[in-house]
Amino acid sequence: MSDVHVSRRARLRERCAAHGSGAASAVLVTRPANIRYLTGGAPPPAALLLTPDGRDTLLGPPLATRAETAPGSWGNVSSDGPLHNCPLPPGEDDPALTATGLAVAAGADSLALEEHHLTIARYRALAAAAPGLRLTGLGCAVEQQRLVKDEEEISALRTAAEMTDQALGELLESILVGRTERHLALELERRLIDHGADGPAFPTSVGTGGNAGISGHQPTDLRVEEGDFLSVCLGARYRGYRCQIGRTFVIGTAPADWQIDLYDLVFAAQRAGREALAPGAAYHEVDRAARQPLDAAGYGVALAARMGHGVGLEIGEDPQLTPAAMGKLDACVPVTVEPGVHLPGRGGVRIDDTLVVRPQADGGPELLTITTKELLAL
Amino acid sequence: MSDVHVSRRARLRERCAAHGSGAASAVLVTRPANIRYLTGGAPPPAALLLTPDGRDTLLGPPLATRAETAPGSWGNVSSDGPLHNCPLPPGEDDPALTATGLAVAAGADSLALEEHHLTIARYRALAAAAPGLRLTGLGCAVEQQRLVKDEEEISALRTAAEMTDQALGELLESILVGRTERHLALELERRLIDHGADGPAFPTSVGTGGNAGISGHQPTDLRVEEGDFLSVCLGARYRGYRCQIGRTFVIGTAPADWQIDLYDLVFAAQRAGREALAPGAAYHEVDRAARQPLDAAGYGVALAARMGHGVGLEIGEDPQLTPAAMGKLDACVPVTVEPGVHLPGRGGVRIDDTLVVRPQADGGPELLTITTKELLAL
Repeated sequence: MSDVHVSRRARLRERCAAHGSGAASAVLVTRPANIRYLTGGAPPPAALLLTPDGRDTLLGPPLATRAETAPGSWGNVSSDGPLHNCPLPPGEDDPALTATGLAVAAGADSLALEEHHLTIARYRALAAAAPGLRLTGLGCAVEQQRLVKDEEEISALRTAAEMTDQALGELLESILVGRTERHLALELERRLIDHGADGPAFPTSVGTGGNAGISGHQPTDLRVEEGDFLSVCLGARYRGYRCQIGRTFVIGTAPADWQIDLYDLVFAAQRAGREALAPGAAYHEVDRAARQPLDAAGYGVALAARMGHGVGLEIGEDPQLTPAAMGKLDACVPVTVEPGVHLPGRGGVRIDDTLVVRPQADGGPELLTITTKELLAL
Repeated sequence: MSDVHVSRRARLRERCAAHGSGAASAVLVTRPANIRYLTGGAPPPAALLLTPDGRDTLLGPPLATRAETAPGSWGNVSSDGPLHNCPLPPGEDDPALTATGLAVAAGADSLALEEHHLTIARYRALAAAAPGLRLTGLGCAVEQQRLVKDEEEISALRTAAEMTDQALGELLESILVGRTERHLALELERRLIDHGADGPAFPTSVGTGGNAGISGHQPTDLRVEEGDFLSVCLGARYRGYRCQIGRTFVIGTAPADWQIDLYDLVFAAQRAGREALAPGAAYHEVDRAARQPLDAAGYGVALAARMGHGVGLEIGEDPQLTPAAMGKLDACVPVTVEPGVHLPGRGGVRIDDTLVVRPQADGGPELLTITTKELLAL
């Protein structure tokens, strides 16, 4: 992976240079997912410094405590030749502070920071430590670079989606009536790991009865009963990459008419959202495609703020598919489409897929989570 | 719980007033654990505003999306009479920004912020939104208030510790040889929930063979073998409160001499740390008590940065038991004592307990995690 990280850092340098950073400008990256993207990973607290002399330095805990935190991640990094690993001096626990000193020593006159990640307290400490250094904003340059994935990243997402489909498929073959939301969620997470996942991409959500269809519902001790809607939302994390699937089922043999109607409505909305995915489509158009059918049916006021979001090293990363989002999809951007309706006291339906935006010439959006979206009665 | 939260907020107001905040000063709390401490909880993103007119306002997602995020937490809060729940206006996703407007409307001339939590980007947005408002620092006032626990908080920790001991005890009765670190960790987490925990307090760590004794080791597919050291670190989360236990065992019937020697050394260090816990003891003295025996045996350079830490709504909260920590223990402060030694390639030993500092007259430190610390051969 080393070459990949070297070229990602080179692109970040170019991007900063193109955006008018001076020749003597250094860059400091502190957001953990951004550090992982640019280096392969490091145990927190860590910071990545790119200096005008062309040197890339990863600052982290001293070697003695590195083994105590996350040996695996550091193992990846130390094989990355052009990246210098620099332990923190004794007593220093903020790598950003050490990085600031290194930036000055390397001849930088300005330092671009992640102002959306650094706290005011840390910023003040950096400013005080290097009064001659001009502190500027890096903006979300790394997050923007992360939007479009390379095929290796998409391959990791595809593998994560396969593991997720397998874990869900096995659950559907087991007996569900009488089991609690908590136990079903735990079983799904165990099965993810059985299939090779590094862990769940986010806390697994299982909602039955009145809890079905609630986004991000935290599993309770409620037991699955005949006639319930049961909704699950889960995803595997594999090599750092996180996918997401959501499905809703009916427990028992014959779904009620209202259940069939609600399911068909959410299914149609979700399909419309999926079909709106194309290079050049505005984020808010995809949101609107999935939101409009639910809105028209009178559920507008209770809908979630977004109909989908990007996935990658983080779940819920950019792009945000919301009514107010600015920007357009590119090819090779993986996103979720996840509309849902919840009727208080009765439950509801959610259907979430992870897809990769592809041009029509390549067959259109690539569906990663392939578990059936028919309304199954389990 | 409502009265408890009301009085916690009253104490925060008093504290701010005593520290020279003007009569027209408002307070904005944004750290999630601090919001939970002062209100009982809210789904993110949320912010708590205390205004000079004596009004406490919890700002969060609009009602439509509240049900979509964490209905349980909001349920607790809305029963808290003197706390006003204020949904965010449409299109606004930073509750701190809405709070700033409310502070101005309530006649505040200054606003104290959590500068160790707010990012520079959010801070600038607040400053731009209310140019007439003086932005000051709240410091870690809420964290300091959280240091000493009331008996209700300690009772929640005690329950969490009981669940943790039970989960660990059951694991020890099962067959361990041939199972992977990942599966043992998952089983421990399942058992925590079986015993009533809301979830694990932190990711469960299981290390066998060469991985035993590594702090924060992420479980791998390595299988437990005869003769291995096996170390586990886990804790239950109950009503938001998190405890921690760590134990190391030998797999097979007869521990090797080096294993017995290393275990005895770490055990002696851990006992020394526990015995150093007393009201008035300096944080660095407790660190030293546990660190010194390991240092004297030649393991100093590879030791963790801290020999223990506070527990409560967060794992690893203050106090930090490190060589450089300033401050002294009070009664009713729950902390861990967790020395460990890891020998690369051979494994190692960790022994972690959660205890509550109590005066000698009350029997000295109260041990919450009571699983035996004898070297068991399993």
